[in-house]
Amino acid sequence: MFGPGPTQIEKRIYDAMSQPVVGYADPFFFEISDSVRAGLREVFGTRNPFTLALSGTGSSGMEAAVANFVDPGSKLVVFTAGFFADRIAEMGRRHGAQVVRSEKPWGGSFTEAEVRDVLRREKPQTVAFVHGETSTGVMQAPTAITKPAHEIGALVIADCVTSLGATPVRVDESEIDIAYSCSQKGLSCPPGLSPFTVSPRAMDWLKARKLDCPVWYLDLKLLAEYYDQPHKYHHTAPVSSFYALREGLAAIQEEGVERRFERHARAHAEFVRRIESMGLQMFAPAGHRLPNLNTVRVPEGMDDAAVRRDLLTEHGIEVGAGFGPLAGKIFRIGVMGPLANEAGLDLFFGAFEKCVQAAGAVATKA
Amino acid sequence: MFGPGPTQIEKRIYDAMSQPVVGYADPFFFEISDSVRAGLREVFGTRNPFTLALSGTGSSGMEAAVANFVDPGSKLVVFTAGFFADRIAEMGRRHGAQVVRSEKPWGGSFTEAEVRDVLRREKPQTVAFVHGETSTGVMQAPTAITKPAHEIGALVIADCVTSLGATPVRVDESEIDIAYSCSQKGLSCPPGLSPFTVSPRAMDWLKARKLDCPVWYLDLKLLAEYYDQPHKYHHTAPVSSFYALREGLAAIQEEGVERRFERHARAHAEFVRRIESMGLQMFAPAGHRLPNLNTVRVPEGMDDAAVRRDLLTEHGIEVGAGFGPLAGKIFRIGVMGPLANEAGLDLFFGAFEKCVQAAGAVATKA
Repeated sequence: MFGPGPTQIEKRIYDAMSQPVVGYADPFFFEISDSVRAGLREVFGTRNPFTLALSGTGSSGMEAAVANFVDPGSKLVVFTAGFFADRIAEMGRRHGAQVVRSEKPWGGSFTEAEVRDVLRREKPQTVAFVHGETSTGVMQAPTAITKPAHEIGALVIADCVTSLGATPVRVDESEIDIAYSCSQKGLSCPPGLSPFTVSPRAMDWLKARKLDCPVWYLDLKLLAEYYDQPHKYHHTAPVSSFYALREGLAAIQEEGVERRFERHARAHAEFVRRIESMGLQMFAPAGHRLPNLNTVRVPEGMDDAAVRRDLLTEHGIEVGAGFGPLAGKIFRIGVMGPLANEAGLDLFFGAFEKCVQAAGAVATKA
Repeated sequence: MFGPGPTQIEKRIYDAMSQPVVGYADPFFFEISDSVRAGLREVFGTRNPFTLALSGTGSSGMEAAVANFVDPGSKLVVFTAGFFADRIAEMGRRHGAQVVRSEKPWGGSFTEAEVRDVLRREKPQTVAFVHGETSTGVMQAPTAITKPAHEIGALVIADCVTSLGATPVRVDESEIDIAYSCSQKGLSCPPGLSPFTVSPRAMDWLKARKLDCPVWYLDLKLLAEYYDQPHKYHHTAPVSSFYALREGLAAIQEEGVERRFERHARAHAEFVRRIESMGLQMFAPAGHRLPNLNTVRVPEGMDDAAVRRDLLTEHGIEVGAGFGPLAGKIFRIGVMGPLANEAGLDLFFGAFEKCVQAAGAVATKA
């Protein structure tokens, strides 16, 4: 599993997931969820009391961020240079916001000056950006967005679906107001939950919001009453997924969060070195690369689908394809969790070099 | 686990859930989801092509029904005699509908004549009811709603959260347009998925709907493009939960769907007989009882919390409490899945009789 996610999952996670299910009001469940919440605070880099896992996948986290923090008729600026930023814009549109897309070609990122320029002109209520864009492998520096946004009093939503658990998000230090993620990428668990955190400042905004969240299922105020005292019934949480996430977070804590981030950074540096020594090029520019999701340019004339097919059928290795404007132009190679080390890279490059050579020979003949 | 759900889960389900996760575009995942869809058609009693499992709990199914089939400003009539019908009304309100609650005290149900009277007067676009009301143990006859609703051309939403898998829903025969459920009650799986089915007539309505579904995550048109050809990426489905649900449905098919329904009906009849032979009374009236969720009146003067505590601490048996207007007045006892048989009842009554006698002795002394 060297795709963009789900990624490799350790046996201990599957074992934890198989523990007997308990009821939604069982004190044992709240022990589990409290432990998940503490672990998520650590990987998010936050002391936000409102930090929990929503009962849906990463996209439900995106929907929750928009439904709770974007008023109908209000202005939402989305900085977009890839697929998932556009999805935020689409959700904003559906929730009745006046959406302004500040756009760059896929693979771009934004400087603080560029952001300030847009936000001073647009004066939005809410600003959204993607921290780690899975479609391009680009990482956006959070403070380039949050500083200018807070100058005009806007709330900032950060999509951390691909970054959380593999690279620092540092929600508090970066002054991100709302962040969400998924369970199956940097956290190395099965998909099904969406880690979510809200700053006290954004929570105050939410408490003062006159409108009810249009989506009852994702209403953060109701969820706070369920996961905190008085534990008022909201929905029956997917207990087994919570067991898995707790175990995944325990594994991360055993390694040490910072050590895990460093391991991913080292594996990424080594990945880039090996790619370049093969004569290939990275797609995302240096300094803006997401360490756990590497995008590699497909050389001119090479059939990337043949390489991916070979990798899968001959070596049992799955990698991601480029899509949208990057279809056929990049490979998307996830190096994360248990595979982000020398042994994982040896496994990958042993196969990748063969498949690329085979495809290169075909390309040369043609 | 004799609560209203989650209920007892067989080991084979946990084993299936621990199979390695695959990617959201893996052909193997679509094999699994096709198999889930076929199994769900069987338990729903429908040939609806649009039958699938949503990536959220039962409440997300309710939200999807309302968000997709209730236009803002349109009229929604909810027949309510319990907690979950009120939740549908609340979701309708949040989605901007003109909600009319046709209300009876908790524990009631509606006759065809009563429904016809309300619907002829109100002429709603959409009508909603709860097939099996978990808060009261009452089952509402579907055709008492669907017949008058179709006379005025309204769409009918049926909440089958507690009934599906344990008792017939017969979506086609009952002419229900939209039905949703959960995975952890009648289907005996962990919570996390919401079985959902839509009639071709309602699907036509949806295709012609000018408004986009306000909730992107639960947009049924997008989900159809993902689960059917062209399998266009929507979100990363919680694969492990799909493995579990497929195994749960396989277990149901091995037993035979109709035989499973009969087993639950027999266990229910025997449950009622034993309750009455203890001198206790059922709460839901005969002929309107949900077979897998039994509500039993707490005798005058008995401390129901003490009985429940005793059951849990002395015998490891969990049952549900009454809540809302029924707090302290009923026990809610789930008899479903692997426990809906003579052995399950022996286990339950062996403990229940002791705890009730102990509480009765205390009540008499006091």
